[in-house]
Amino acid sequence: MEKITIVGGGLSGSLMAIYLAKRGFTVDVFERRPDMRTNRISAGKSINLALSIRGIEALKKVGLDDEVLSDAIPMYGRMMHSRTGELNYQPYGTNNQAINSVSRGRLNLRLLELADAYDNINLHFNHKCKDVDIDKAIAVFENEKGESITHKADRIIGTDGAFAATRGRLQITDRFDYSQSYLYVGYKELIIPPDALGNFMMDKNCLHIWPRGAYMMIALPNPAGDFTLTLFLAHQGKPGFDQLNSKEAVLDFFKSEFADALPLMPTLQEDFFKNPIGALVTVKCYPWVKADKLALMGDAAHAVVPFFGQGMNCSFEDCVVLDECIEKYYPNWTEVFSHYQELRKPNADAIADLAIQNFTEMAEKVGDVDFLLRKHIEHDLCEHFSDIFKSQYELVTFSTVPYAEAKARGAVNDKIIDEIIAKDLIDNIKGNDHVKSIIQKYIN
Amino acid sequence: MEKITIVGGGLSGSLMAIYLAKRGFTVDVFERRPDMRTNRISAGKSINLALSIRGIEALKKVGLDDEVLSDAIPMYGRMMHSRTGELNYQPYGTNNQAINSVSRGRLNLRLLELADAYDNINLHFNHKCKDVDIDKAIAVFENEKGESITHKADRIIGTDGAFAATRGRLQITDRFDYSQSYLYVGYKELIIPPDALGNFMMDKNCLHIWPRGAYMMIALPNPAGDFTLTLFLAHQGKPGFDQLNSKEAVLDFFKSEFADALPLMPTLQEDFFKNPIGALVTVKCYPWVKADKLALMGDAAHAVVPFFGQGMNCSFEDCVVLDECIEKYYPNWTEVFSHYQELRKPNADAIADLAIQNFTEMAEKVGDVDFLLRKHIEHDLCEHFSDIFKSQYELVTFSTVPYAEAKARGAVNDKIIDEIIAKDLIDNIKGNDHVKSIIQKYIN
Repeated sequence: MEKITIVGGGLSGSLMAIYLAKRGFTVDVFERRPDMRTNRISAGKSINLALSIRGIEALKKVGLDDEVLSDAIPMYGRMMHSRTGELNYQPYGTNNQAINSVSRGRLNLRLLELADAYDNINLHFNHKCKDVDIDKAIAVFENEKGESITHKADRIIGTDGAFAATRGRLQITDRFDYSQSYLYVGYKELIIPPDALGNFMMDKNCLHIWPRGAYMMIALPNPAGDFTLTLFLAHQGKPGFDQLNSKEAVLDFFKSEFADALPLMPTLQEDFFKNPIGALVTVKCYPWVKADKLALMGDAAHAVVPFFGQGMNCSFEDCVVLDECIEKYYPNWTEVFSHYQELRKPNADAIADLAIQNFTEMAEKVGDVDFLLRKHIEHDLCEHFSDIFKSQYELVTFSTVPYAEAKARGAVNDKIIDEIIAKDLIDNIKGNDHVKSIIQKYIN
Repeated sequence: MEKITIVGGGLSGSLMAIYLAKRGFTVDVFERRPDMRTNRISAGKSINLALSIRGIEALKKVGLDDEVLSDAIPMYGRMMHSRTGELNYQPYGTNNQAINSVSRGRLNLRLLELADAYDNINLHFNHKCKDVDIDKAIAVFENEKGESITHKADRIIGTDGAFAATRGRLQITDRFDYSQSYLYVGYKELIIPPDALGNFMMDKNCLHIWPRGAYMMIALPNPAGDFTLTLFLAHQGKPGFDQLNSKEAVLDFFKSEFADALPLMPTLQEDFFKNPIGALVTVKCYPWVKADKLALMGDAAHAVVPFFGQGMNCSFEDCVVLDECIEKYYPNWTEVFSHYQELRKPNADAIADLAIQNFTEMAEKVGDVDFLLRKHIEHDLCEHFSDIFKSQYELVTFSTVPYAEAKARGAVNDKIIDEIIAKDLIDNIKGNDHVKSIIQKYIN
């Protein structure tokens, strides 16, 4: 049977391995880190993630959806925290729609366990990719003893993340388009522990947001009763991580900006100086594939910033689409890879752009009266014309409509809202046939 | 005296070396290629270039402007060649404004000769940069014998082109923004030789253009009586370089597309298969500098596509600006480098975008009636309101207004033209006070 090397045993690498194993291929997964089943190690990057419909659909294909959801905490809306501590709850949708807080580590572990149950999947930990010979489908790894291991297969799938070694090889081939672009904002993870009885200290069924423009904090619940907080803040500036260089400065900053969270954060000052500052990068590249030999997936092909909560969902959707292309075009792998690429590239670009756009909106428009009015109109349209009007957020988060279509629909929605403002229908949306005809004019 | 390493002895490297030598610094220039003064080698990339005011001003600072211009051929306008051979001449400006066809090789040679005349400049040829320790300002080279040479200085200037080794080092530092983006069109250089008496076979005082939309050909005159042609064509497609895979296919293509040039190209079929296909890349990055240790210049910082004829001019302007920053901030090199970067980055981005925009206009709008109408209006405004209206092309090519300002002015000009169309003043521009007041409304 054909042999496939997967470089990277993170979320998309382990899921893709299972898809391939189910089709009977012999799969070798090489992961840089130690086996997380026997070592208490970080799965890298963020602690928890928001799983939504695209990710759920991908897990359903391997029968893991129910199990993962049972271990997740549904978040039915956003809870906005003002500087003075007022709360403002915004449900995600009318039908109890939710995004689900899952632990990256536990999800990754579960996928690896499932992968390991397949005889035709071999997991290799502590194998760091050093080089790839794309045309020969040979990958070279270094193990924990510093030994060099050469592995030859029929083709290679690179799921080795935003700084992928596999992509590095593609990058020095002819006419490879590549960009890496950093946000001026970085992030630091902090914690709100459970109370003395092990209970959540805030409402657990929502995504908590402390919106402050160009900086902000969010919190996602974990099953153990704690929340993982993520503080997004400029690397340099006032305020900026570089300014928060003493325990007093951190305390003052939280007192003034996140006063209601501060009493819930007993280890803030220790955590702040213990935890690293992460950078937020968008990576785009093209092509993602080389002939029938190499394909990139997940962050290796398209790292996105986290402001739409779609990084994992998008990567899982890559796996679904590649699997569908195998279904359709196998054994012609050149066709498999090229259709996969053509189907996914525009959508990965779209979600990357939407994630940046979401950040920009939060950073620059949070106090913009016009912007808030538009959001208000959009909300009313969703509520009163839910059969024909879908917001961009809804299409991205609660549907499997391709991201590029969701993005295009966002632009169309803007025109609808423009016209509603121009025709002074703002306060007269509910049940209004004129509004209905405007929507229908733009959305066939 | 302070020691400065320059990596790359091309156009901007050799010019910058002279600027620095004039200020008394000890300069070591390391160039990958052999000494072009004793070896008949290509200076790399295109054979001739269009020198305009920004480049001329930069050469003036080292007293080379008159000499270089005396060896150049002024081109006072564009000569457009239609498929059927009709010619249409468009002067660049009203005041005998010209761009100047210069030989990249001879200009580079002259700069190296001048550099070599300075006791405090040491030229090292056949030295390929292998690595850089930025913080220590140490560069490691490999010479033609394969020996490793380590050179330490106080700081390093990287002028080593679009695929710069110096930038490669910066690229793996924290939060480095980088993009390389290829055009789907590549290029191939061809030739129209002089006639039997050594005379030019077309008008030598213009830039010849065979505009055909997404593909096209241009010709620049050389002092020896020949023209260098550059064919821009898709790498793949119909038509595309991949389709022109036989002498017959090439001949057929030229017969149908460049019929008037074909009889002037006796060696077309040989040249076509001898000469390489070049790729066209835009490189952007940030930061360009690291503390007081490293600065990038020219293509190393900002490779642009050639459709505005500003690559060399922009790189020479980098040298002027860095020299001015030294004048102002020396001996604080951190200030020198950071001001240089802040002054140049927006302008390099602007000319990169304008060059792409020029290609897009040629590729997509050459037959667009609206576009041609707008160009016609712009031309009339330039002619009849030359004191207050400047086209973007004029500002880029015939002024030293920063590129970013020229680009912004282009957007303002678009609004002026919009209003002239909306108010139906298209055929009534000359001496019209209403038109004048529209221009003045937009341009303070």
